[in-house]
Amino acid sequence: MADRLGIIAGLGGLPAALLAANPDALCVGFEGADLDLRDDQVTCYRIEHLGALFDGLRAGGVTRVVMAGRVDRPAMDPAQLDPLTLSLAPRIMAAIQSGDDGVLRFVIEMIEEQGFRVIGAHELLPDLTAEPGLLAGPAPGDAHLADIARARQILTALAPVDVGQACVVAGGQCLGIESLQGTDALLRFVADTPDELRRGGGVLVKRPKEGQDLRADMPAIGPGTILAAQKAGLDGIAIAAREVLLIDRAELIRFCEEAGLFILAEAS
Amino acid sequence: MADRLGIIAGLGGLPAALLAANPDALCVGFEGADLDLRDDQVTCYRIEHLGALFDGLRAGGVTRVVMAGRVDRPAMDPAQLDPLTLSLAPRIMAAIQSGDDGVLRFVIEMIEEQGFRVIGAHELLPDLTAEPGLLAGPAPGDAHLADIARARQILTALAPVDVGQACVVAGGQCLGIESLQGTDALLRFVADTPDELRRGGGVLVKRPKEGQDLRADMPAIGPGTILAAQKAGLDGIAIAAREVLLIDRAELIRFCEEAGLFILAEAS
Repeated sequence: MADRLGIIAGLGGLPAALLAANPDALCVGFEGADLDLRDDQVTCYRIEHLGALFDGLRAGGVTRVVMAGRVDRPAMDPAQLDPLTLSLAPRIMAAIQSGDDGVLRFVIEMIEEQGFRVIGAHELLPDLTAEPGLLAGPAPGDAHLADIARARQILTALAPVDVGQACVVAGGQCLGIESLQGTDALLRFVADTPDELRRGGGVLVKRPKEGQDLRADMPAIGPGTILAAQKAGLDGIAIAAREVLLIDRAELIRFCEEAGLFILAEAS
Repeated sequence: MADRLGIIAGLGGLPAALLAANPDALCVGFEGADLDLRDDQVTCYRIEHLGALFDGLRAGGVTRVVMAGRVDRPAMDPAQLDPLTLSLAPRIMAAIQSGDDGVLRFVIEMIEEQGFRVIGAHELLPDLTAEPGLLAGPAPGDAHLADIARARQILTALAPVDVGQACVVAGGQCLGIESLQGTDALLRFVADTPDELRRGGGVLVKRPKEGQDLRADMPAIGPGTILAAQKAGLDGIAIAAREVLLIDRAELIRFCEEAGLFILAEAS
């Protein structure tokens, strides 16, 4: 098992997809997370025991590591910190203050300092992303394209302050910008928009932040995103070609066709 | 009644406050809006009858007009448009596509074309805004000041795309950005943040967008904002000194003191 793959598993279906494509991989996660994996597929560690986690990966012969799915940031119990985690704590705290990307850049740096190479899920499974074009549903109209352009403009404005992988615009009006709570929470928020404020269905635009390292927290959509977008009354979704993960692609496309929602992949 | 004041009444307590301070004013509004005024205090027009509304103001001797409180944008029934509204329709549609400020700039322009002078509520009632300093509650700590600075940074980034009068940051993390649905909806969204994502209480920052015309849609907070901020678990609110309306100031401050929430007014 030279060059064995390690998977740091977060939420959602991506860890299972990577494991299915790389059955020899060693999968680790954090205790308390609601992972979409069987107990025998993953070894879980306390967030305070990063030293033990890295030792486990090393003992398993892992040389390459992929981060897959969101890891919520649980509170750390200072009394439980192992020596490595304790030594990293000041940098962890500083990274957290610097926004989402700051945390993820730090996580990549930390894993590489431990001697592993960090790779992106899209490098392992290129089929997980989309080439430019219409993936599903009816072709977007001019009003949709205008809403997509406005949402991209909003996300571009936010990139320098490290906020926002997603934005909803309907009839030129911004109905929501993704924050820490994620895309599903954004779509639930949009679903609650009073009818009298709403003009047209609107679109969800989901893209990596400009300059974002795709090896960490690559944006993803899955069948659940489609259902949530449908409940939010949207007409479609625009994603960045080659830079957004499609989870359960076949089902995702079937859900779109059934709901009459488009998915458009746009080049950067 | 030379230089009579006209009040275009939207939602919330501001129209009543302006009317109380200007009992000779002529107050108009739009049918279907849930105004905080008695029926005998306001004359309501259909949104399609802007010509009739302006005629009513002129007939009443109005020369100055103040817009007070949010006017939701109801759908217009094309069959009902009076000649003036019909002639304005293309510009209304274009303005709506250009974002919140675009609409409001257009509304001011339209009212002034009709021969009225548009003034800001804060010019009529300077006591409605705050001088720089701590208005209520305990002094914010360093972590609060850091969260306030980050929220301001996010709002500054968004100003060029005409989005966002408010933002919530807790422990350096953005928990929400105001969109069309307004501050109360933002605070309800923040209240639903899962505990495991939350770091500290956090702050709401509310300011006009940079470059915004304060004569229209001036940001406002009131006792309801305090209750919503409390439900969202926030530690305090930072507003722009002299540029945010304080509705029911005495009650607002009492609510803050009871909830232990600070209000800090910051110079630009």
